[in-house]
Amino acid sequence: MTNTQLTHIQIDNYGPWTVTPEPRREMDLQTLQSRLFADLAQFVGGRGGYVFFTRFDNMVAVTNGLDRRDHELLQESVGNRYPVTLSLGVGVHETPVEALETATAYVQAAGSAQDSTRREVLAGDFHADGAADDLHVAHFDVDDATGKYTDRLNEFDTFIRIEQGYAALMRYMREEHGALSFFVGGDNIIAVCPELSAQQYAAAIDAVEESVGVELKVGVGTAATPHEAGFAAKHALEDCRHRGTAVEFAGAADHPLPDTD
Amino acid sequence: MTNTQLTHIQIDNYGPWTVTPEPRREMDLQTLQSRLFADLAQFVGGRGGYVFFTRFDNMVAVTNGLDRRDHELLQESVGNRYPVTLSLGVGVHETPVEALETATAYVQAAGSAQDSTRREVLAGDFHADGAADDLHVAHFDVDDATGKYTDRLNEFDTFIRIEQGYAALMRYMREEHGALSFFVGGDNIIAVCPELSAQQYAAAIDAVEESVGVELKVGVGTAATPHEAGFAAKHALEDCRHRGTAVEFAGAADHPLPDTD
Amino acid sequence: MTNTQLTHIQIDNYGPWTVTPEPRREMDLQTLQSRLFADLAQFVGGRGGYVFFTRFDNMVAVTNGLDRRDHELLQESVGNRYPVTLSLGVGVHETPVEALETATAYVQAAGSAQDSTRREVLAGDFHADGAADDLHVAHFDVDDATGKYTDRLNEFDTFIRIEQGYAALMRYMREEHGALSFFVGGDNIIAVCPELSAQQYAAAIDAVEESVGVELKVGVGTAATPHEAGFAAKHALEDCRHRGTAVEFAGAADHPLPDTD
Amino acid sequence: MTNTQLTHIQIDNYGPWTVTPEPRREMDLQTLQSRLFADLAQFVGGRGGYVFFTRFDNMVAVTNGLDRRDHELLQESVGNRYPVTLSLGVGVHETPVEALETATAYVQAAGSAQDSTRREVLAGDFHADGAADDLHVAHFDVDDATGKYTDRLNEFDTFIRIEQGYAALMRYMREEHGALSFFVGGDNIIAVCPELSAQQYAAAIDAVEESVGVELKVGVGTAATPHEAGFAAKHALEDCRHRGTAVEFAGAADHPLPDTD
Repeated sequence: MTNTQLTHIQIDNYGPWTVTPEPRREMDLQTLQSRLFADLAQFVGGRGGYVFFTRFDNMVAVTNGLDRRDHELLQESVGNRYPVTLSLGVGVHETPVEALETATAYVQAAGSAQDSTRREVLAGDFHADGAADDLHVAHFDVDDATGKYTDRLNEFDTFIRIEQGYAALMRYMREEHGALSFFVGGDNIIAVCPELSAQQYAAAIDAVEESVGVELKVGVGTAATPHEAGFAAKHALEDCRHRGTAVEFAGAADHPLPDTD
Repeated sequence: MTNTQLTHIQIDNYGPWTVTPEPRREMDLQTLQSRLFADLAQFVGGRGGYVFFTRFDNMVAVTNGLDRRDHELLQESVGNRYPVTLSLGVGVHETPVEALETATAYVQAAGSAQDSTRREVLAGDFHADGAADDLHVAHFDVDDATGKYTDRLNEFDTFIRIEQGYAALMRYMREEHGALSFFVGGDNIIAVCPELSAQQYAAAIDAVEESVGVELKVGVGTAATPHEAGFAAKHALEDCRHRGTAVEFAGAADHPLPDTD
Repeated sequence: MTNTQLTHIQIDNYGPWTVTPEPRREMDLQTLQSRLFADLAQFVGGRGGYVFFTRFDNMVAVTNGLDRRDHELLQESVGNRYPVTLSLGVGVHETPVEALETATAYVQAAGSAQDSTRREVLAGDFHADGAADDLHVAHFDVDDATGKYTDRLNEFDTFIRIEQGYAALMRYMREEHGALSFFVGGDNIIAVCPELSAQQYAAAIDAVEESVGVELKVGVGTAATPHEAGFAAKHALEDCRHRGTAVEFAGAADHPLPDTD
Repeated sequence: MTNTQLTHIQIDNYGPWTVTPEPRREMDLQTLQSRLFADLAQFVGGRGGYVFFTRFDNMVAVTNGLDRRDHELLQESVGNRYPVTLSLGVGVHETPVEALETATAYVQAAGSAQDSTRREVLAGDFHADGAADDLHVAHFDVDDATGKYTDRLNEFDTFIRIEQGYAALMRYMREEHGALSFFVGGDNIIAVCPELSAQQYAAAIDAVEESVGVELKVGVGTAATPHEAGFAAKHALEDCRHRGTAVEFAGAADHPLPDTD
């Protein structure tokens, strides 16, 4: 069955730290945040998971395949190398937003995000080891974004279009399906979803086009880990390109991962 | 007078590269993008500028203080260390979006973002050396985001609120004033603006609250470089916190940078 | 029994790349090399292994606990994010230098380090999964390096002393025991060794002092993975500090790793 | 005239930090050290300087072209992004080791490397702004290292040869000329030197070959900044390759930097 494990990653007491003893150089904060995210992407990604930058001081990871010990190692390694520490809450549920609700609640129960004494919380429910569960990843992009926007408008006006498409999709998928959609750069949005039909994906795309005029297409993959599901979704999105379709599903059977044994 | 130099940074032919010969691991792409941005933040920031991640494959930098040679060095250094290269377009104008319009046009004139033969464009108009110009940086944040959202809602629902506030502000500032607003993480938005009055900033905050219910406050700084203007803006935002006000201006005289000579 | 798995990591065709089409900026090469090493340290270290920078274009890793699939993932991830690629050879043996001999031979058999057509070799013998083997890590440092050198001499003259100590130790341990010793910064040297007695370690320390006048001490750990053995060795070295001794052995029983389950 | 500005970079109280409250994971320390060095390489290198990793907790930079304000910015930026801070001492002299002697003395005068209360020292003599001085960079490599060693021996035995060559050269150049030689990876050594003749360089190469049997060649460059001198040295070393010679000098006139204005 579908069961998504979500980890809420929160930098401890970050806001106050950024202005103590006085405001820190913004470009140093940007560097710190983006490198921390990059390290998380390598750590989580190397274990089959996905992490999204979200607000940078609070990030969301899909961590099917990572156990408590992996989370402890992540906390320890970041604590050894950064001037800030991380708290982690973990939840598992068929519906992604419910899993995140649990994950965040574990962090909140231990104290405020701006509590100077709360550090390195690690609490949560972990996916049962060996359970034969799967999860669903949908990879959206904007149809011909380069031709319609990037090569024609100034970069900010292009960005406004992409951003509007993302804002519309993230709300629709959250409200209708409890799915979590993340902008990942360019014209790409990756959503972790409950099990949804092709009609439901098509309806999401229609809703975005109607509300903000941005045309999306989507590839959907299903697998035991975010990387495998996302990799299948990327291949399915390539199928959309070649076939001129708006929604494609990919099974692991159609687009097998390279054999690595 | 106010004169903002904007640089449009575009990764050459990035979209095709990400799926050649087949889709690359998403977490590797996320790592590459965020580390490249971090390097730009250090390079530009160490010379007094600001850079924003925007879409990651296309970024926008405020580069008053950086000349053509700095831009060339940036291109060379990235080309030496990454599997991708950068094209740079530069423009200068009293109104930020007009400067960016020029910057983007220089890049577009050299070829498409997905043109496999267009590499390392460097073209643009640079700020006249020694001109006594200034620029304006506005640093917005969400009033009590931790108390209202982060400590109460699951992280995605918090993110939706912050994101809605950002989407509303970015459009308002663009349309009304030709200002460019960038989400920089947490609940923070930094805008590079033409000269605006306190009433105009207050009107922007009101417009966001009316449309999406998110309450912002803003500190505004003016100086010769983005870092100096932004540093003053951060101090002004601290003044908002202490005084309970929604808009504060800071002159370099009120919040001098530490003497570094 | 003792069985050490060594991986020889070689950047493909790196020398020619650094001068094509003309010499690249040295500080960019230094950045590339040290960041690549840092990424390997995180990848290998997060899986319980150790990697040493050695010559940077050729590195040596102790990879008990990493299988072929881990090595493939490492190659893929580096290939996605760097302008260079890696070849990997792997060997296993009771004596570390014999394991490395095998590892290097696999890489050499596929072509020269400066062969422009040889890329991403992956060949070797891997440690049998589930074998109850262990390995030995010795952590040396210079006795009171801060008091004798760092706080007294100019940094280069301090470095010469440390470097002489390292050069003497690396040759002694290689010739006498087939052990591989690596300078890891400061006044620290980490050696991966066959099983050796306290007398043999003491003899090594004596030999270094006699030949170059540098006094070392050493903590030794034994475990199934480099991290566990090295962690125990660090604790044993702390014991040397407290007890004023030159050689200490630590069993996992004396210095248990924090329980992480 | 020749005048070299050297900066001694020391991580404050690093040794104790690495074992507090208990020993930290070695691969995290390696990551921290090498990324800090990489950041210094970008910062210093982007301003025309050179930095060498030396012992990682103590590094040496050639900083002609960087003033006090640049050093302050470096300290501030590292302090904002790392869990450790840097002290910096600066000296200027015709003979590099004398410049370093001054630089280190400034740091030592402020306290021990392991003094927990000494942080972010910045003291020194800076190169007079606008002085028409130059400096000399010699770039050595091992003749046919790939053919003789890398493609034939196991990597550790190759490394021993390279390391022996380096150890012999560093001592000779320090003792005979007060020059500072740094291993920079592969088979490359970069030395910052007083003004020396071709005969003196040839004598150094002969001395190394006689003592340890390793054959070196060298290109030498002279310019106002380390990058320019080092770039010319690299070109001169290429000349050695093409001409089969052991020592070549390059003037900026022979190998001009690309015009970047």
